[in-house]
Amino acid sequence: MVAVRTGQRQGPTAGEVAAERASGGEVRWPSGFLAAGVSAGLKKNGKLDLALLASRYPARAAGVFTRNRVQAAPVVVTREHLQGGVLRGLVCNSGRANACVGERGIADARAMAEEAAAVLSRFLGEQVPPCQVAVASTGVIGVPLPMERVREGIRRAGADLSPEGFEAAARAIMTTDTRPKVAGVTVALPAGQVNVAGMAKGSGMIHPDMATMLAFILTDARVEGADLTGILRRAVDDTFNMLTVDGDTSTNDMVVLMANGAAGIDPGEDALERAVTAVCLDLARQIARDGEGASRYLEVEVRGAATREDARRAARTVASSSLVKTAVAGADPNWGRILAALGYSGASFDPGRVTVSLGPVEVARGGVEVPFDEERAREALRAAEVRIVVDLGAGPHAARAFGCDLTEEYVRINASYRS
Amino acid sequence: MVAVRTGQRQGPTAGEVAAERASGGEVRWPSGFLAAGVSAGLKKNGKLDLALLASRYPARAAGVFTRNRVQAAPVVVTREHLQGGVLRGLVCNSGRANACVGERGIADARAMAEEAAAVLSRFLGEQVPPCQVAVASTGVIGVPLPMERVREGIRRAGADLSPEGFEAAARAIMTTDTRPKVAGVTVALPAGQVNVAGMAKGSGMIHPDMATMLAFILTDARVEGADLTGILRRAVDDTFNMLTVDGDTSTNDMVVLMANGAAGIDPGEDALERAVTAVCLDLARQIARDGEGASRYLEVEVRGAATREDARRAARTVASSSLVKTAVAGADPNWGRILAALGYSGASFDPGRVTVSLGPVEVARGGVEVPFDEERAREALRAAEVRIVVDLGAGPHAARAFGCDLTEEYVRINASYRS
Repeated sequence: MVAVRTGQRQGPTAGEVAAERASGGEVRWPSGFLAAGVSAGLKKNGKLDLALLASRYPARAAGVFTRNRVQAAPVVVTREHLQGGVLRGLVCNSGRANACVGERGIADARAMAEEAAAVLSRFLGEQVPPCQVAVASTGVIGVPLPMERVREGIRRAGADLSPEGFEAAARAIMTTDTRPKVAGVTVALPAGQVNVAGMAKGSGMIHPDMATMLAFILTDARVEGADLTGILRRAVDDTFNMLTVDGDTSTNDMVVLMANGAAGIDPGEDALERAVTAVCLDLARQIARDGEGASRYLEVEVRGAATREDARRAARTVASSSLVKTAVAGADPNWGRILAALGYSGASFDPGRVTVSLGPVEVARGGVEVPFDEERAREALRAAEVRIVVDLGAGPHAARAFGCDLTEEYVRINASYRS
Repeated sequence: MVAVRTGQRQGPTAGEVAAERASGGEVRWPSGFLAAGVSAGLKKNGKLDLALLASRYPARAAGVFTRNRVQAAPVVVTREHLQGGVLRGLVCNSGRANACVGERGIADARAMAEEAAAVLSRFLGEQVPPCQVAVASTGVIGVPLPMERVREGIRRAGADLSPEGFEAAARAIMTTDTRPKVAGVTVALPAGQVNVAGMAKGSGMIHPDMATMLAFILTDARVEGADLTGILRRAVDDTFNMLTVDGDTSTNDMVVLMANGAAGIDPGEDALERAVTAVCLDLARQIARDGEGASRYLEVEVRGAATREDARRAARTVASSSLVKTAVAGADPNWGRILAALGYSGASFDPGRVTVSLGPVEVARGGVEVPFDEERAREALRAAEVRIVVDLGAGPHAARAFGCDLTEEYVRINASYRS
């Protein structure tokens, strides 16, 4: 939990620092929100698989959705519900994606919203329309939801709603994740504090475009007049979208932001954006760290790009190159693979002007190897958090991508390729 | 060895059949070509690492090269040499890519051509200019070639040149390949026979864009007037390029075609293209079968696409999806992953019109699951050669992509995702 200074805009740095420091501490969930996570019998062994989030007050809301041509039913329904710009709650199941099941999928997603709206109406003591409930699903594609279990689960979640339910909710949205992912930032203002916190699931860093990524960000900030959609879109662009390859997404990806104003304080659009970005960045990094089969977190920073898009593309391409990832797993400073990945990234640059560093060790300059201490370079790749920095020497733009290494059989072949 | 009928153009089918049948038999190398493979000490343990190909007669030649922005020195030099349209030989080393080593790389590639030209001049008893020698390299990027060893290797290869040297040459160009890859087709014509044969290396199906792919195709056909470059480009497009993701290529990829006319027979442009395509297809499939860590060959056919590019894109995307590949490895008929991959392929289609078959088992129609025998579907995925057929229901275009499954740790997590 950390203070984000407000005032003049300082770029992502402030938010970033906040996020780094925030991820260590305990998350303070925003006022006026409640959560529950229950087992509805969608996963085996009584694992939590249904989450319900509720706001005591109407929350202004925005969403960012998958760009996959095949869109899961909950994506269609939630997009529709967000047109009103107000949410009172969110229901999410794991175990089944509710995608590619035909007309029935839409009906089931609507039924989830209706059941949750009924539960929330009883709980909050006022009428909540189904269109004020967001719906999300994650799990196997092509298998319909067992709706009786889902309905029963929603009812039990409604009975469990509490300000202490966020951890259970974060567990209930997991699929192959090995741990729940939550993050929070507190913004200190003269008038008091505003909290922004969120939960996410996703663990498929090897093919992030396919492993559903869900994130729900909550804040008690008052946000009258703020462009919530713009804030969320920009925050997602520099964080969750830098986990993905070329904007490829699963059928179910969704990030939802809800601001219920319970803190009674409007931090201003810039401070809010920094805080939301900080929470998204923290969650994105947690997803990268939890990459399927990963042993190391990998962050790739590209500087000196001619355009912002070039920087983003180059960073993502290097971070998602299997050969770079296996070199990291094998702690092999095979920097040529980085150059080759840059070469097919689509970014514009002169190979003869590229500089590459592995952690603190510069290994190439002007596109060719510089003398470097092999053992130090290996050490930089053996760290739990590996950082590759590239300067393209082509302009002023920079971007970072978040990933992880690639282990095992494929590694056995590729990691020791040089020796 | 198989006859390709000539006459009216029959599309890729004839060539395809020829290739399937050809891959079983022994390859008949075209007349007037010689080859050698030696160990120049670039790889460890005295493995073969330098190949030399020679033609007794000036051969008309064409090449197709990597589209990576970072191009290895031999790519630059060979592209230049092919401007003359005539080759007498080709020299290729493995172990070092001769890429990203600065100005020196170009000088080294030129020196390889010069040394080979000198050797060929002595061997053939006539002056061979260096610009009639193609140069190729594959191996580690960023490490210069040990030129004394390379020169010495070229001289020894020159002394070894023989019509029986192709197998050794095919071995000498291997890197992580587990076996050499050669293929041949004989075209029977009233006037006699024409042979087309080739060798290839490449084994990185998990990230084909990064694992160097080299192929050298030779024919004794007389090809006066034929558009060799067009023939090669079209052949590569439907074969080697369907191994790759979105045209991404390594720094060193190269396919070279040489036609020396030694058979004294001109088969006509169509027959030649069919035969070249058949050889390329056979080699491409061998590369897919030898995919790093692969246990199964995977062929994805997409029909009913609105455009040719849509068909190609969709087929390549499905064949390269890690989640599809792990489902194949785990023999899990999780067809939703196929639909999701189609969805982010960029192809235009209505998800509600898609049909998916795993081998002979139709699993989805109209975008939703049809009742199918789970055990039969699993069996289709357990075959050594797995075939996925998709109909997009959007038009008349079709394409095939060639790949393999994805095994091990990543599989442990993903293959059993449904259970």
